[in-house]
Amino acid sequence: MGADARRRYVVLAEGAFGELPSKTAMGVIRYGHDPVVAVIDSRQAGRDVNEWLPGHAIPIVADLDEAMAVAPAEQPPSALLIGIAPQGGRIPPSWRAVLVAAIEAGLDIVSGLHELVSEDPELTALAATHGVELIDHRRPPERHVVASGRAHRPGSRVILTVGTDCAIGKMSVALELRQAAAAAGLAAVFVPTGQTGIMIEGWGVAVDRVIADFLNGTAEWLVERAETLGDWIFVEGQGSLDHPAYSAVTLGLLHGATPHAMVLVHEPGRRGHHGWEGPDGRGSPLLSLADNIRLYERAAAAVAPSRVVAVALNTGQLPEDEARAEIAVAAAETGLPADDPFRFGPAPLFAAIRTALDGATP
Amino acid sequence: MGADARRRYVVLAEGAFGELPSKTAMGVIRYGHDPVVAVIDSRQAGRDVNEWLPGHAIPIVADLDEAMAVAPAEQPPSALLIGIAPQGGRIPPSWRAVLVAAIEAGLDIVSGLHELVSEDPELTALAATHGVELIDHRRPPERHVVASGRAHRPGSRVILTVGTDCAIGKMSVALELRQAAAAAGLAAVFVPTGQTGIMIEGWGVAVDRVIADFLNGTAEWLVERAETLGDWIFVEGQGSLDHPAYSAVTLGLLHGATPHAMVLVHEPGRRGHHGWEGPDGRGSPLLSLADNIRLYERAAAAVAPSRVVAVALNTGQLPEDEARAEIAVAAAETGLPADDPFRFGPAPLFAAIRTALDGATP
Repeated sequence: MGADARRRYVVLAEGAFGELPSKTAMGVIRYGHDPVVAVIDSRQAGRDVNEWLPGHAIPIVADLDEAMAVAPAEQPPSALLIGIAPQGGRIPPSWRAVLVAAIEAGLDIVSGLHELVSEDPELTALAATHGVELIDHRRPPERHVVASGRAHRPGSRVILTVGTDCAIGKMSVALELRQAAAAAGLAAVFVPTGQTGIMIEGWGVAVDRVIADFLNGTAEWLVERAETLGDWIFVEGQGSLDHPAYSAVTLGLLHGATPHAMVLVHEPGRRGHHGWEGPDGRGSPLLSLADNIRLYERAAAAVAPSRVVAVALNTGQLPEDEARAEIAVAAAETGLPADDPFRFGPAPLFAAIRTALDGATP
Repeated sequence: MGADARRRYVVLAEGAFGELPSKTAMGVIRYGHDPVVAVIDSRQAGRDVNEWLPGHAIPIVADLDEAMAVAPAEQPPSALLIGIAPQGGRIPPSWRAVLVAAIEAGLDIVSGLHELVSEDPELTALAATHGVELIDHRRPPERHVVASGRAHRPGSRVILTVGTDCAIGKMSVALELRQAAAAAGLAAVFVPTGQTGIMIEGWGVAVDRVIADFLNGTAEWLVERAETLGDWIFVEGQGSLDHPAYSAVTLGLLHGATPHAMVLVHEPGRRGHHGWEGPDGRGSPLLSLADNIRLYERAAAAVAPSRVVAVALNTGQLPEDEARAEIAVAAAETGLPADDPFRFGPAPLFAAIRTALDGATP
């Protein structure tokens, strides 16, 4: 956990802006507090972020030199933020030259990669020379404690977003619902469990980076901290329980957070696990919403019962009429409130969750 | 992964020999290849290991001085093996003096603790002075790769031991079944996934020490290696799916190993999760055998279907007639072959597993 001073970012999203691997870039621009002065993606140079995220007018540029040039002279960028999360989290060799150039230009480096920039010999030596900081938001805490099974603070309501897949919108749904709860006058908290959430919120732990034995315990500890900050606690979920590569992280978060309720996040039209081809290239198909709900509720019940109380759909790729039709289908299939909180606002879905929980929570 | 030269061990089991926290000591004595010359447990000094493990005549002594004195002069001990696995895996402060004295006496230190002895400044400085090695069997591999969903090598049969709890005998059952398969003339492999198994076998990964994101991928990799070594592959399970603190490790191992079959290990009479008191001191009750089987099979099926094909009971605490009665009850409750492979030999249970698998595996 840690907090950041305010920075002015150049966001590196080379080759990926607007696509799923750039979800860190998108999340920081959409939900972050610090200004972004330029996005680097040579494929999209000349375009503007507001084509993807209306209301966020930020130039997309070809390289770091151009990023430095487009920024207002009186407000130069102060940091390069790595806005892509490659599978496995290594620093791609092609980025190294960009990181070196950024450090030489006096920029801090802000990273959420597994491979820690602050432990890279070349980068640390260069950073010392140029007096810049290397900030790793995925660095795990030194705390090595297994879950103790603490009870929730009475009055708290812990809601975990769970998904039919990874990279499907669990962080954004938790942020939107937190916003709706705050707008309803409640003391609402977002619990970041991944590097993008940490960059946005200034605290949290990238739970996929924690030693496996302490995963449940770290999730428990995050919720304990959140319960000192507010009453309505929205925990960012990770992965999916049926994901061949990431299921352990999903279950540890579920059993450590022991949520009172879960919100299932899905993208209509997604059929297979994103970026995961499987042994024969056929990928790994997603379970139905109903099967997902059964799986999450059964897994939760092995430690602490919890219900899926709502479905959040990510319909950004669909025209509005199709989006509304998908929402109706999801509601009918599951018998639960369903909506797209990004697109149609989070207030209705939050109101439904509040009704479900306040009928059930002491 | 790594292999050891042959050593002569003093095993540190202070305050715990014969009890569950000393399972590393018990496992290394029972299944290891390197001789143990003495066990340190001041509570039990003067007794002999063969009171617990018949056939293993090893003196239990009060301290390191006594351990050095009882060893044959021509075959002095060459290493101190830490035979206790405290929850959380820290070096208890009271042991530090023993480790220091062992290093000063010229012994290597062999450890399976989370807290790595080879990264402890005091111990590494002292080890350098005295020319001894500090060996951490729980050190995770540098390999950081997520699961790829590789298919099993045709002809291989992968069997994972799963449990109703942690510290219940999953490693021992896998070792006993491997022995039975080898005795049947099959190319059999044991896959160590914890520090004790690694100490016994000389390779493997303590999967609870791996970064959570790479847990499934590491389990997959271990099975890939095992499939180059033999056909009948017995993977040591970890934790339990309903364990509040360790469930993530259990699921990652299950989804990474994608076993063809599972063997459920249980200790009759154990009612709650060992060493885990829960928020109100009431602990966390174990699920029934039938509920465990459902939970493991459903969880497996989310990635790759697998069946529980046998039940292995750890009846060491019961008289023989009660043990046989418990085995009959387990078989009736589950409709599966059941036995205590430690006590009555692994051949019958392995034969039943072989029948179940060779009816189902191409």
